[in-house]
Amino acid sequence: MIRFGVVGYGYWGPNIVRGLSSLKGAQVAAVSDIDTSALHKVRQHYPSVQCYQDYRDILKDPSIDAVAVVTPVSTHYAIARKALEAGKHIFVEKPFTATTQQAEALIRLAQKKALKIMVDHTFIFTGAVRKIKEIIRKNTLGDIFYYDSTRVNLGLFQSDVNVIWDLAPHDFSIMDHVLHKKPEALVAHGMDHFDRGQENLAFITIYFADKMIGHLNVNWLSPVKIRSTLIGGKKKMLVWNDLASDEKIKIYDRGIKVKSKESINRLKVDYRSGDMWSPRVEHDEALRRELKYFCDCIEKDQVPINDGHAGLRVVKLLNITDQSIKKGGKLIKIQGSG
Amino acid sequence: MIRFGVVGYGYWGPNIVRGLSSLKGAQVAAVSDIDTSALHKVRQHYPSVQCYQDYRDILKDPSIDAVAVVTPVSTHYAIARKALEAGKHIFVEKPFTATTQQAEALIRLAQKKALKIMVDHTFIFTGAVRKIKEIIRKNTLGDIFYYDSTRVNLGLFQSDVNVIWDLAPHDFSIMDHVLHKKPEALVAHGMDHFDRGQENLAFITIYFADKMIGHLNVNWLSPVKIRSTLIGGKKKMLVWNDLASDEKIKIYDRGIKVKSKESINRLKVDYRSGDMWSPRVEHDEALRRELKYFCDCIEKDQVPINDGHAGLRVVKLLNITDQSIKKGGKLIKIQGSG
Amino acid sequence: MIRFGVVGYGYWGPNIVRGLSSLKGAQVAAVSDIDTSALHKVRQHYPSVQCYQDYRDILKDPSIDAVAVVTPVSTHYAIARKALEAGKHIFVEKPFTATTQQAEALIRLAQKKALKIMVDHTFIFTGAVRKIKEIIRKNTLGDIFYYDSTRVNLGLFQSDVNVIWDLAPHDFSIMDHVLHKKPEALVAHGMDHFDRGQENLAFITIYFADKMIGHLNVNWLSPVKIRSTLIGGKKKMLVWNDLASDEKIKIYDRGIKVKSKESINRLKVDYRSGDMWSPRVEHDEALRRELKYFCDCIEKDQVPINDGHAGLRVVKLLNITDQSIKKGGKLIKIQGSG
Amino acid sequence: MIRFGVVGYGYWGPNIVRGLSSLKGAQVAAVSDIDTSALHKVRQHYPSVQCYQDYRDILKDPSIDAVAVVTPVSTHYAIARKALEAGKHIFVEKPFTATTQQAEALIRLAQKKALKIMVDHTFIFTGAVRKIKEIIRKNTLGDIFYYDSTRVNLGLFQSDVNVIWDLAPHDFSIMDHVLHKKPEALVAHGMDHFDRGQENLAFITIYFADKMIGHLNVNWLSPVKIRSTLIGGKKKMLVWNDLASDEKIKIYDRGIKVKSKESINRLKVDYRSGDMWSPRVEHDEALRRELKYFCDCIEKDQVPINDGHAGLRVVKLLNITDQSIKKGGKLIKIQGSG
Repeated sequence: MIRFGVVGYGYWGPNIVRGLSSLKGAQVAAVSDIDTSALHKVRQHYPSVQCYQDYRDILKDPSIDAVAVVTPVSTHYAIARKALEAGKHIFVEKPFTATTQQAEALIRLAQKKALKIMVDHTFIFTGAVRKIKEIIRKNTLGDIFYYDSTRVNLGLFQSDVNVIWDLAPHDFSIMDHVLHKKPEALVAHGMDHFDRGQENLAFITIYFADKMIGHLNVNWLSPVKIRSTLIGGKKKMLVWNDLASDEKIKIYDRGIKVKSKESINRLKVDYRSGDMWSPRVEHDEALRRELKYFCDCIEKDQVPINDGHAGLRVVKLLNITDQSIKKGGKLIKIQGSG
Repeated sequence: MIRFGVVGYGYWGPNIVRGLSSLKGAQVAAVSDIDTSALHKVRQHYPSVQCYQDYRDILKDPSIDAVAVVTPVSTHYAIARKALEAGKHIFVEKPFTATTQQAEALIRLAQKKALKIMVDHTFIFTGAVRKIKEIIRKNTLGDIFYYDSTRVNLGLFQSDVNVIWDLAPHDFSIMDHVLHKKPEALVAHGMDHFDRGQENLAFITIYFADKMIGHLNVNWLSPVKIRSTLIGGKKKMLVWNDLASDEKIKIYDRGIKVKSKESINRLKVDYRSGDMWSPRVEHDEALRRELKYFCDCIEKDQVPINDGHAGLRVVKLLNITDQSIKKGGKLIKIQGSG
Repeated sequence: MIRFGVVGYGYWGPNIVRGLSSLKGAQVAAVSDIDTSALHKVRQHYPSVQCYQDYRDILKDPSIDAVAVVTPVSTHYAIARKALEAGKHIFVEKPFTATTQQAEALIRLAQKKALKIMVDHTFIFTGAVRKIKEIIRKNTLGDIFYYDSTRVNLGLFQSDVNVIWDLAPHDFSIMDHVLHKKPEALVAHGMDHFDRGQENLAFITIYFADKMIGHLNVNWLSPVKIRSTLIGGKKKMLVWNDLASDEKIKIYDRGIKVKSKESINRLKVDYRSGDMWSPRVEHDEALRRELKYFCDCIEKDQVPINDGHAGLRVVKLLNITDQSIKKGGKLIKIQGSG
Repeated sequence: MIRFGVVGYGYWGPNIVRGLSSLKGAQVAAVSDIDTSALHKVRQHYPSVQCYQDYRDILKDPSIDAVAVVTPVSTHYAIARKALEAGKHIFVEKPFTATTQQAEALIRLAQKKALKIMVDHTFIFTGAVRKIKEIIRKNTLGDIFYYDSTRVNLGLFQSDVNVIWDLAPHDFSIMDHVLHKKPEALVAHGMDHFDRGQENLAFITIYFADKMIGHLNVNWLSPVKIRSTLIGGKKKMLVWNDLASDEKIKIYDRGIKVKSKESINRLKVDYRSGDMWSPRVEHDEALRRELKYFCDCIEKDQVPINDGHAGLRVVKLLNITDQSIKKGGKLIKIQGSG
């Protein structure tokens, strides 16, 4: 039984508490929030959970094994560091930290203390992404040409982050998980329509090895919600519509068949247009699966796939995106990623 | 009655001949094509039309008033120039010319000879684009934040042009027609996956005055065909799905209501989420409407909206897109557009 | 504060308990279920709620004002009768009872004891049905020609009821609520593919006054889930897709314009094809709204719209549907409905 | 080379003439129409075709091998009979004839004169229906439980026929072609909202052997066009959306798995919910394929699948549908069909 303290009971915190409560191997021992009305809700739903306004009270409890940090990103580092120092494993909301330096410091500290870090990249635990990973691993798509994601909606303007830090972590962590290529360069363009100092839409292009290209379209001002990703491969192509209640993933036996280099220039390209296949996608709750995996990693002393390094890679891309926009859309080389 | 010669009877030429044949005020007098099998088809369907292999035979016919140039873009300039020199009005397939210099030379020549140029920007004559123009003109959307178009399909790899010259002229001419802002800068990223020297996908960002931003996603390697455009305004937002058989245009009474600058940073933004309205869109054939308009412009000596200058503006953006990609995604300022 | 006892904690019971618990004016005092594992769940989530295996223990508690009957339909009558006899208001899961005689007996008993009956026709409290009712009440559609519903899915074969008793109560109660016409006759056809003595698909046609016709297609063997209703009126037509996450209701300014009776036969009918309009539909939880309304009806001593008579009208149609199928698709006149 | 005369150049006639003109083995020699403006159009597009107002002039031409009858259904019999008497093969627009007696008389006459009859059941030549037939023939779906078609739109009110004769021949001919069961009984309900003596909507239920059931929903007053068919089988289920530009047919690996009869009653049924598969459907023009097949049948002296008997079977079902409605929704047994 792993005993958890949860720091932060705002938008996402209740999901973490509910998810942990549903696991046999986990128990929520304490929750902290600076907002007493949030704590009031905790007491109503979970009368046996200890409530604190100061998260440091959680860290003092020696019976607590792990701490979930579900607060604004600007506070992740300080809380996570103290939790590690107190000997707690940490589960940190995405994005991991505000800077790569912070992420690196936490990784070092966890390593020194032999503690686990898991970054909450929930999407990679969904049935859809697990199926996509399986399809790519089996080389069903062949060499991948591009990953093109549209992630737009009429979004809540957040005070502390821009649309990139809100929406792009999903795609950055998914690409990191399913594609087997390192990002080599990134360029981004965005707009801050309301002079807030925070972009509300952005277009991000990522260059990977071997001519693979990624593109993200993130936008807080779209009248319709779109969560659509095209992945084009040499052998087959995949469309993932995450909002579809059914048939989220479709694999098309379509593409071009290059006879020879010469032939392309001369228009002697064959087009294939075959069947479409939509594999069944599991519907179990991703967050619950992720939390269970975290408990397993702790108990079996295994390194999670979404560990501090995975969190660092995402933070690095977020930082480079911000830099590229600040420099007027400059292409930025990515050093030693991975 | 305006008598036409049509140069080129390949993919699009038959549509031009059919469109002109259906008009009361127009007559196709002659068609030329270097391919005799194309001419054979003309004779079958239009026994009374004169057929030539050499387009210069069309220019020699003094009874011909106007020439439609429906050949590959690399040949537009030479044919159009000779047609103007022979005293013919010209209707030129999009994109107008291969370079801005060519476009400017044709504009000057036409002006000198008092002849009309129309560039075949068919899309601006569709019911959908005419409705969008009307909506924007009436300021239904309010100040426009962005124009975001996805135009992808499993496309024919063309030997002479890249995906940009194939697909982007549509959006460039539509933006030119419906938005009332000058493009100020452009930046583009693309990929040539098959080492053809021609991009098969590209992402183009255009900066307009007053923080309006445009974005095009064009791709010849998409398993599904998408023709979808989001236009976000301060008052309302529009979605145009050109592949929908019905309800092509939807206008959403959605957006954010900014109380004060201060309030945004503090998250005190109101969200509106009201009704949706899908105006009826006329279904008449756009090309036929455009050709009729060309005849009217000739007869009434009027300047077409899609004249040589409109064609030039599109060619300029195409050239800048190519330049930006060649320079590794450099942002290029646009001088004196419009 | 109205104190509730809830009989039955199977599939729907937890929703009733959760809904009541979220209301300020209501309190769940006790829950009963013959299954002890169900009671175990109650104790986990609601430690302060009294749990019983025998529902009669609930009826003995004089502090309980109202009883929700959330058990299989065959047991509704016995439980509801005893609850009324014990002086409790009753909230009964749909369909109200297994026979019209049972429904009539409960109505009489409640009247005698001055107690409220509410039948859980949840759908009429959804944003979509409330909007449809408003549209029809304002005569936006004009005289209604037909109500045509498709309600199919890969459904759980229930042991005690057929597909009609499972799915048709929704449409019967919605038609009862939004249309202002009495059903005059009903005819139904169905099939029991597995020799269970229970139909797994059925097609039901209902004749109303003034040539209004209703049609239901209910099916437990459909690979896709469909919840789609067309309502055709003389002035406008409505499409309700209850599975759409957005734009659930669309109103089409389409129809035919009859110039004169003579003209129709001579094909001189005008077709209108105008705009489409999708009104905003409220998203609040229907069940919670219904339960709050039940509490209000008790406190203000008002008759609910979904009272015992409404429940009886639905049960009558269900019985007639079964009869019609048993008699090989006989058209059955409906006496004195409403 | 088979020489054709085409009687009737209204709505569908031009498609027949165009289709025949595109075939190598066929030639349109003459067209007749009582409307001279129709003939004017023929002369414009097909200068070499002979034009007549009186179809009997076509029959007099000994060089003509076959006659296409593309006139209102009430005239089919008289024209077809005279054509057969004149020694011409006949291609007759659907529905074949107005009565079964007429159909039987034409079949006898053709047999006596050794001439071919083909009834224009175009749909069975589409890529979609050919694929469905193939799927059913291979027993991919297993035993078929039901065929449920919705075929509604805002339709042209035709002066001479009701919605059943307009829309139901499609489904009757498709069911006749793809299902391998005889219809045993039929029952229909309809409504004539405008007192024209012709129904504008109808619901038709057809009982086949082995508990297979068919259902058609045809409606001329629907705001949206729907062409959707569900075919439920024991092993798999199929959805055909004929309006989809892509993925017209979807096959779902879904259904219920019956362990034993007893188990169903006790709710011990397993649900399967597996992958979906959308086979590629050929896009070639169905009418052209059908006309080519007619020429082949004449040349090779073969009996078409859509011969007079197929036409008769469809007319029989149309007549029974009308009868059932006239008798207030009476179930009518079908004698010796097939």
